[in-house]
Amino acid sequence: MPGENDRKDCVIGVDFGGTKILAGVFDAKFECIGRARVSTKADRGADEVIGRIARCVREAVDECDLDLKEIIFAPNLGWNDVPLKKELEKLLERPVFLENDCNVCTLGVYEVELKAKPRDVVGIFLGTGIGGGLILEGKLYSGFNRTAGEIGHMVLEVSGPKCGCGNKGCFEALASRTAIFRKIKEAVKEGQKTLLTEMLGPELEDLRSGDLRKAIKRGDKFVEHIVEEAAEYTGIAVSNLINILNPEVVVIGGGLMEQLEDEMLAIIVETAMDYAMPGTTKGIEIIATRLGDDAGITGGAVLARKHSE
Amino acid sequence: MPGENDRKDCVIGVDFGGTKILAGVFDAKFECIGRARVSTKADRGADEVIGRIARCVREAVDECDLDLKEIIFAPNLGWNDVPLKKELEKLLERPVFLENDCNVCTLGVYEVELKAKPRDVVGIFLGTGIGGGLILEGKLYSGFNRTAGEIGHMVLEVSGPKCGCGNKGCFEALASRTAIFRKIKEAVKEGQKTLLTEMLGPELEDLRSGDLRKAIKRGDKFVEHIVEEAAEYTGIAVSNLINILNPEVVVIGGGLMEQLEDEMLAIIVETAMDYAMPGTTKGIEIIATRLGDDAGITGGAVLARKHSE
Repeated sequence: MPGENDRKDCVIGVDFGGTKILAGVFDAKFECIGRARVSTKADRGADEVIGRIARCVREAVDECDLDLKEIIFAPNLGWNDVPLKKELEKLLERPVFLENDCNVCTLGVYEVELKAKPRDVVGIFLGTGIGGGLILEGKLYSGFNRTAGEIGHMVLEVSGPKCGCGNKGCFEALASRTAIFRKIKEAVKEGQKTLLTEMLGPELEDLRSGDLRKAIKRGDKFVEHIVEEAAEYTGIAVSNLINILNPEVVVIGGGLMEQLEDEMLAIIVETAMDYAMPGTTKGIEIIATRLGDDAGITGGAVLARKHSE
Repeated sequence: MPGENDRKDCVIGVDFGGTKILAGVFDAKFECIGRARVSTKADRGADEVIGRIARCVREAVDECDLDLKEIIFAPNLGWNDVPLKKELEKLLERPVFLENDCNVCTLGVYEVELKAKPRDVVGIFLGTGIGGGLILEGKLYSGFNRTAGEIGHMVLEVSGPKCGCGNKGCFEALASRTAIFRKIKEAVKEGQKTLLTEMLGPELEDLRSGDLRKAIKRGDKFVEHIVEEAAEYTGIAVSNLINILNPEVVVIGGGLMEQLEDEMLAIIVETAMDYAMPGTTKGIEIIATRLGDDAGITGGAVLARKHSE
């Protein structure tokens, strides 16, 4: 019950991307006591989106019978072109703090799911693209230009497939949802049989991560193989990060992982343990986050709390 | 003149590897005021080597007219099997501190060459193998099992050449001195012409990094190409580290770099800047260390000073 919470301890986290805006109000124990979700409508332009973020925040606040004035707010940064912080502070009349989305997700997992116990944690988020966040010595690490954690563009195969960034063989070009979908569509064009075309038609319109899981469960060996390959590349990326940073915990999230944990996690762990140098892996954990879609709003709330302390 | 130094501020750094032991006495300003060098004679066993380390320390101390009792000592760790710290403390009657060699080298470069100005620095050492060290937020970062910085086994080319560690396509298998020599010897066996065989005979016995430089200076395009390839892989490894850690300075050292800086550094910088994500490289520097062979003993002295503070 909201009445049980000291209202001054409540913070709100916002996560916004190209398709949706999520806002969550969190109490002193980082329990989510109110939430709202609206579509982004990015095509309507920056002003409209900022207005929609503000609306989403107000809806989440209304949900839990709090007054907006009591709340600090931290959206994830997914957008550099607009003076987002200033505009939102004007609209909401509260301080706003921004941070890169994968950093925020890692922070949320670290503080709420891992209870800030391990000192060094690497977060990996597999979705349309691949991003990461680093907690080093108990703190979010962001580096000289605040760009640390761009693990999706770590080159794993110099002569590999072209990546959106212009390089070849980036982790993202080998193991993101985009990479998996591209491989499937290319193979189907070349005559590969798959249950996916039965499910979705020959053009594989509206293909989603969940469809891959369904096809695998129904025995589609082709889709299984493609997903396994992505899991192996992810395992190699994890081993690189273990060799470089020797974290205590590697936590993997993102939409792809949420849908395909059963199919991917064991292969990721096995490959990473096999590739990492002896001595580096003793006692370390490679796990999937349980926060799912809430990692961003949870991390936003943690960030807001840190700024308000 | 040693008399000008406050003797209590003197520390000694030791760097030992498979072939040689280096010891250096450093004053309060980390100027080296005495040094000694002996061969390791690793084949004579641990006890003999420990005795030789102690002898090397005594010779360096004798060199600068100090009494051993005034000195704190920090050898690099290159050896896990022997209770090295205890044995040396017994022999030298002084506290001894141990640390991984590439970590120590990075620490030396950071404190003495870079004057501890940048917050985040990655050190890369190209030699027989490839190792690294990380200074993050102004401190040596070592991770959960104290193994952080194993950058030589970052996979850059999943389908690349076999590495000593059992994996394929590690940075070390693509760009170390061992990798370069292997490529040259393989090509020579297959009939490749090179000035190196004129210089060293058909078996390329006693091939050294300096020979590569000499051959390139005399116009050997084959050797130039092999070295350029190693520099390109190093540039890609640097870009991976920039994407992941976004350091302010990447500093490259090691025997290979010392001999081939003119041939490699520009290519490394160009490749890294080309591969790294836009936004990550603004204002960052990729440089070669000026400490050369002294990076280890300098870092050892820094470590000893830190422990004595």
